[in-house]
Amino acid sequence: MKTVKIALLGIGNVGGGVYRILNEDKASIGHREGLACEIKYVLVRDVNKPRDLDFPKSLLTDDFNVILDDDEIEIVAEFMGGIHPAKEYMIECMKKGKSVVTANKEVIAKHWPDLNRAAKENGVGLFFEPSVAGGIPILKTLWTSMQGNDIESIYGIINGTTNYILSRMTDEGLTYEAALNDAKKLGYAEPDPTNDVEGYDATYKLSILASLAFHAKVPVEKIYVEGISGISPIDIDYAKELGYVIKLLAIGKKNGETIEVRVHPTMIKKTHPLASVNGAYNAVFIKGSAVGGLMLYGQGAGRMPTASAAVSDIISATNPANFKYTTFENTYETPKCLNFKNDWECGYYIRVSVHDRPGVLASLAAVFGQHMVSIQSVIQTGQREDQVPLRIVTHLAKEQSVKQTIEAIKALDGVIQVDSLIRVEDDI
Amino acid sequence: MKTVKIALLGIGNVGGGVYRILNEDKASIGHREGLACEIKYVLVRDVNKPRDLDFPKSLLTDDFNVILDDDEIEIVAEFMGGIHPAKEYMIECMKKGKSVVTANKEVIAKHWPDLNRAAKENGVGLFFEPSVAGGIPILKTLWTSMQGNDIESIYGIINGTTNYILSRMTDEGLTYEAALNDAKKLGYAEPDPTNDVEGYDATYKLSILASLAFHAKVPVEKIYVEGISGISPIDIDYAKELGYVIKLLAIGKKNGETIEVRVHPTMIKKTHPLASVNGAYNAVFIKGSAVGGLMLYGQGAGRMPTASAAVSDIISATNPANFKYTTFENTYETPKCLNFKNDWECGYYIRVSVHDRPGVLASLAAVFGQHMVSIQSVIQTGQREDQVPLRIVTHLAKEQSVKQTIEAIKALDGVIQVDSLIRVEDDI
Repeated sequence: MKTVKIALLGIGNVGGGVYRILNEDKASIGHREGLACEIKYVLVRDVNKPRDLDFPKSLLTDDFNVILDDDEIEIVAEFMGGIHPAKEYMIECMKKGKSVVTANKEVIAKHWPDLNRAAKENGVGLFFEPSVAGGIPILKTLWTSMQGNDIESIYGIINGTTNYILSRMTDEGLTYEAALNDAKKLGYAEPDPTNDVEGYDATYKLSILASLAFHAKVPVEKIYVEGISGISPIDIDYAKELGYVIKLLAIGKKNGETIEVRVHPTMIKKTHPLASVNGAYNAVFIKGSAVGGLMLYGQGAGRMPTASAAVSDIISATNPANFKYTTFENTYETPKCLNFKNDWECGYYIRVSVHDRPGVLASLAAVFGQHMVSIQSVIQTGQREDQVPLRIVTHLAKEQSVKQTIEAIKALDGVIQVDSLIRVEDDI
Repeated sequence: MKTVKIALLGIGNVGGGVYRILNEDKASIGHREGLACEIKYVLVRDVNKPRDLDFPKSLLTDDFNVILDDDEIEIVAEFMGGIHPAKEYMIECMKKGKSVVTANKEVIAKHWPDLNRAAKENGVGLFFEPSVAGGIPILKTLWTSMQGNDIESIYGIINGTTNYILSRMTDEGLTYEAALNDAKKLGYAEPDPTNDVEGYDATYKLSILASLAFHAKVPVEKIYVEGISGISPIDIDYAKELGYVIKLLAIGKKNGETIEVRVHPTMIKKTHPLASVNGAYNAVFIKGSAVGGLMLYGQGAGRMPTASAAVSDIISATNPANFKYTTFENTYETPKCLNFKNDWECGYYIRVSVHDRPGVLASLAAVFGQHMVSIQSVIQTGQREDQVPLRIVTHLAKEQSVKQTIEAIKALDGVIQVDSLIRVEDDI
């Protein structure tokens, strides 16, 4: 049996899960994989800090160089998070011939080209399945199960916090604030939830997914992002009436050399498999030229699911045949695919508060027409009051035309305000 | 760039798709994988038969030995179907040092041990992703993305024909016969649909899935099987009322050394992700000890989806590092896990036609009690007629106890007949 010595950088949530699996499943991994994975070091900042995990303290070190200089260490698994010094540590390890496994989405999204280059130049492996969608093996599927496909589009529910909040709002009619508070209590949301609820976390993951799927570096900054903090229970109810649910979708599409990448609340048909992805679950739906629609669903976060992905990566990293490098241009500055679209097409749901008097709808409709935005349906309910909500759903329309339409509507006599704009994806 | 020479055994539906992908995507596969896949031979019965695929006739041969004796051929992809001579051809190829890719579920389900042994002894690869659930990379996920998990259960919608029929019955209220007729017209069902509708096709796939997941050979004959031909629109409607949909589920569960494997119509909660798997789509939901619930969804049949899986297997087969062999006992006669359960527990939906007169419900309930089958709900609707339908849903109960209950009920005064029994899985 082959023995592989491993160092963990960090032993927090995910690192602790990896430690647990490699120890508890030692026998079965040995039997099935012919492999003994031995953790030799665990790098921590403070070796004396109390830890809830039961493991030999002798593994702990606060000196990164001990790991770096130990030629027995073949694989380093990074669970520190953050950019520095995680990035530098990983590159130094690779220069010493060690393969790297990481759960660090931010460092991959922002510094993948550097890391990929270090891996390639030193002939080692760089694995990061746990960085996207926790336990869901979506990156391995893209690398090793879709080679005969051009990927046309990706639709991901890849942030558990926002999906939990939207699910609670949808199922129980909670307000955004109430659902967010519950998410905080349950540990699904950070005390400062901005990174999740405003969609930034999803942009890191979409950057990784889209780069891998489209074979072109998709920088995080090219991704349009809009969070869920503006979603109101009213719109969730109206969505239901229209046969939709609202999800924070991370969307990537490629058409020739043009890529569109965006993260925003999206109405999708309630019969689509993505619509039944609820709570803290994640899912990624991919359309490939040969395979058609393929969806992977599972736990997108959490100690053991993420550790499950990390352990598979560690096992992959023991075999050089599994080392894969990106083929796209390895710089941010000159991505192979230069054309990032900001004038994509989708459907739009627009809610406008108007005075209920003759002529308002006509003037509104005229503005849509002037901007070449075709209306699919208009619903006006509510009694004869001074202020009524108008819900408009458009056919496929261009983002910039819709934005201009909104500006023009705001200036109309009889329009009180534009309350919401939510994009609609009918053709997933 | 590495060049790999390949022979296809058969160029029908899936083989034709493989030919198309390997030719049309030659450049991108070369670029991304550093690999030129060259099809050198296509084995057919009749080289002169007209074919709808545009490819050089010079590739055709009707002589298997030409392929077998050509040492340039590294990979043989089998798309002939059936047991003989597919099995013999594959084994002969492996003895000659050629790796094998196959879409043949029947031969894998029935002869996997022999094929696995031939692969292992000759140090070649045996790949069969396209044999289960078409384009869905479920086998690769089990092999390479769940090594840190004990698989607890599998729930699969792995037969497109039955899922199409049940979806049409559910969505449109069609009878089984009408939906089957449409399925035949659209090519989703064979002229003789027995193999699909009676669940046999699903047993082959479940045998493969369960063997791989549970690391123990699960013979097809150990799988309980019941098809969908007895499902009536009435039960589909009643299921809806109860918050369920009816799917033909292939179920595998492992508990210690005990395995239960069964294929039958099943009521599942309509909010579960499996419930929104409609039409000819397939999905496999797996519960792993670390990753929790993981579901893969996609096209379970069809030329290009299945060819997508075959092409990935062909690419995997070019690298010996990807060769994997089962670790379980390689015989049918002495499977490692001997305990196959036929007295599993699940919920049960039972519809009984009774005379609407006092005392009938009481005597019925007493029979359930005598057999230790606990009733969760009873619904009796319908006007005061001579014959009324009673729908009973049980709590978790043992299969054999329920069967005995049914027999005892049939003998009761006031019971006209037991119309249906459908198993209920609430805890997926």
